[in-house]
Amino acid sequence: MNRDASTEPVVVPGSTFGPVFAGLKPHMAALDEFLREQTGAFEPEIREMADYCIDTSGKRIRPALVFLSGWQTEGRPSSALVRAAAVVELVHLATLVHDDIMDGAALRRNRETAARKFGATPAVLLGDALFAHALHLAALFPTTEVCRIVAESTRRVCAGEIVQTMRRGSTRVSRDDYWRIIDLKTAELFRVSCQLGTRLTGAAEGYVAAAATFGRHLGIAYQIYDDLTDFYGDEQRIGKTLGTDFASGKLTLPLLVLMEKLPATERAGLRDEICGSAAGQMSLRLHQMEILGVFDEVETTVLQEIASAETALAPWATESSSALLGQLCGVLRAQLRALRERD
Amino acid sequence: MNRDASTEPVVVPGSTFGPVFAGLKPHMAALDEFLREQTGAFEPEIREMADYCIDTSGKRIRPALVFLSGWQTEGRPSSALVRAAAVVELVHLATLVHDDIMDGAALRRNRETAARKFGATPAVLLGDALFAHALHLAALFPTTEVCRIVAESTRRVCAGEIVQTMRRGSTRVSRDDYWRIIDLKTAELFRVSCQLGTRLTGAAEGYVAAAATFGRHLGIAYQIYDDLTDFYGDEQRIGKTLGTDFASGKLTLPLLVLMEKLPATERAGLRDEICGSAAGQMSLRLHQMEILGVFDEVETTVLQEIASAETALAPWATESSSALLGQLCGVLRAQLRALRERD
Repeated sequence: MNRDASTEPVVVPGSTFGPVFAGLKPHMAALDEFLREQTGAFEPEIREMADYCIDTSGKRIRPALVFLSGWQTEGRPSSALVRAAAVVELVHLATLVHDDIMDGAALRRNRETAARKFGATPAVLLGDALFAHALHLAALFPTTEVCRIVAESTRRVCAGEIVQTMRRGSTRVSRDDYWRIIDLKTAELFRVSCQLGTRLTGAAEGYVAAAATFGRHLGIAYQIYDDLTDFYGDEQRIGKTLGTDFASGKLTLPLLVLMEKLPATERAGLRDEICGSAAGQMSLRLHQMEILGVFDEVETTVLQEIASAETALAPWATESSSALLGQLCGVLRAQLRALRERD
Repeated sequence: MNRDASTEPVVVPGSTFGPVFAGLKPHMAALDEFLREQTGAFEPEIREMADYCIDTSGKRIRPALVFLSGWQTEGRPSSALVRAAAVVELVHLATLVHDDIMDGAALRRNRETAARKFGATPAVLLGDALFAHALHLAALFPTTEVCRIVAESTRRVCAGEIVQTMRRGSTRVSRDDYWRIIDLKTAELFRVSCQLGTRLTGAAEGYVAAAATFGRHLGIAYQIYDDLTDFYGDEQRIGKTLGTDFASGKLTLPLLVLMEKLPATERAGLRDEICGSAAGQMSLRLHQMEILGVFDEVETTVLQEIASAETALAPWATESSSALLGQLCGVLRAQLRALRERD
């Protein structure tokens, strides 16, 4: 990929960062090939199950961050980058397998979830095996650094998921709580992806730290955007049912803002819907969000995070990967605009 | 611990390897202290939950194997051994947290299971966080070797648990299948404990391999013994209800042997009990086991595995840790005798 080619977006259907850079095609092909090879490492009895989970249908946002932040030259990526991309993707896939058990989800991306296909109990263990294999791959690097980073990051992602789970159906969630949850459950792995990509290509310490900060802000922006799509999304395009988070009692930023903006006397009703003591009135809540300008406020927050991500990279404009990472900010802004326009 | 002291067994109630060596007291104290410190590494929101799981009530068989195989001198163990012992124990504790979710178990060692105390969903994630922390500790060693060994081992333990889960309630389990399951789910971590203990104290390659083989055979012997206690145990002493495995459709060696020894015409009834299409007739099955000599045959198998464990160590009699490990064989033999005598 050269700088010119990188400005030509290629739309990948169903992916937020769909318009990824054309130059990433060989990277993603190398990743898919590597991941397919990995199933051979699993014990024969669980190979088919592992293969099903590793299947190449995901959005691959985290691997894209590894490849973009570790960008050096056009063509086939280094084996170190491919392995690092596989590690973060496997950690992510393992959390999805466990998430789907907890949510009782039957479908993910139009396929049966592992929990539905193999049963909840094997799915718990299968997620464990995917985690373990991710760490095994991390341990194949020459030093313990990748392993240390990934193991710690995995623990933080799990902590974020635990806090979110414990707060589900609770109305005592502050903005700080929300921030903490998405920082751990989403931004952490975005951050680590950028850290690994830069680190493994020998970038200067300062740039590694800047890329990590970029990844963290992008992750927060992405998660808030994703939470917005529960209310404003296009069901067909995004591939999920609107109001799923709302119905499950997840107090995300759009609802937090609505709660703040509603007159005190009207908050009790919304609280009841979140705790599940009353049925969620999706159309009423959407209408109120409209009137009270919830989208605008949430959008402003996302844009602030995107700006913080860009600020982190600003001093590193001469790094070739910096410009590529920066383009993700443009893509997310465009997605946000599209959400408003579809609305 | 010197050789004389090592021959004085100290009975630890409720532990199969209860008569552990007096000299391990400072090791276990150092491990407990180290594990207590670890909870500080967890995110504040999940610290209390992690602390609950890490609590020092377990049997600590795997750490004992690390300490015994890495035995060098009396007194406080090296920090490397303590960390390795903590790693294998945390992996084991994580599998217990996930096991208890799947079994729907309410109690373990007379305390509420994590699944019961915090809910199944947080318990899935908590197990993940414990796994991740174990791997994080493994990554603190100077090289990637421990991380590689532990990650691979964890995947194999999970594979064993998956196969066992998928076969539950099935009567199409051969002796080979049973062997494969216990080799993965139990013997693997015993093997790795001995491998790490010897490796970290700079033992010769040949002795590391011998200790690993010893651990594997001891693990198989231990698991078969443990499966025997489902039929022959003393409920109060072992702290579990007899027939739990039988009732849950787990086809362990005592049942496999009974199935083989029953006249072909009487097998269907037992099969129905295992698949759960008929209620388990525990007293009838115990009576048949008695008449048909099931205990003897299973005992012979355990003794064969113990002998194989001893054979592996035989060429290494001059290693001080070899004699200590060998004593575990004596302890397991004594436990087996005690089981027969109580019967």
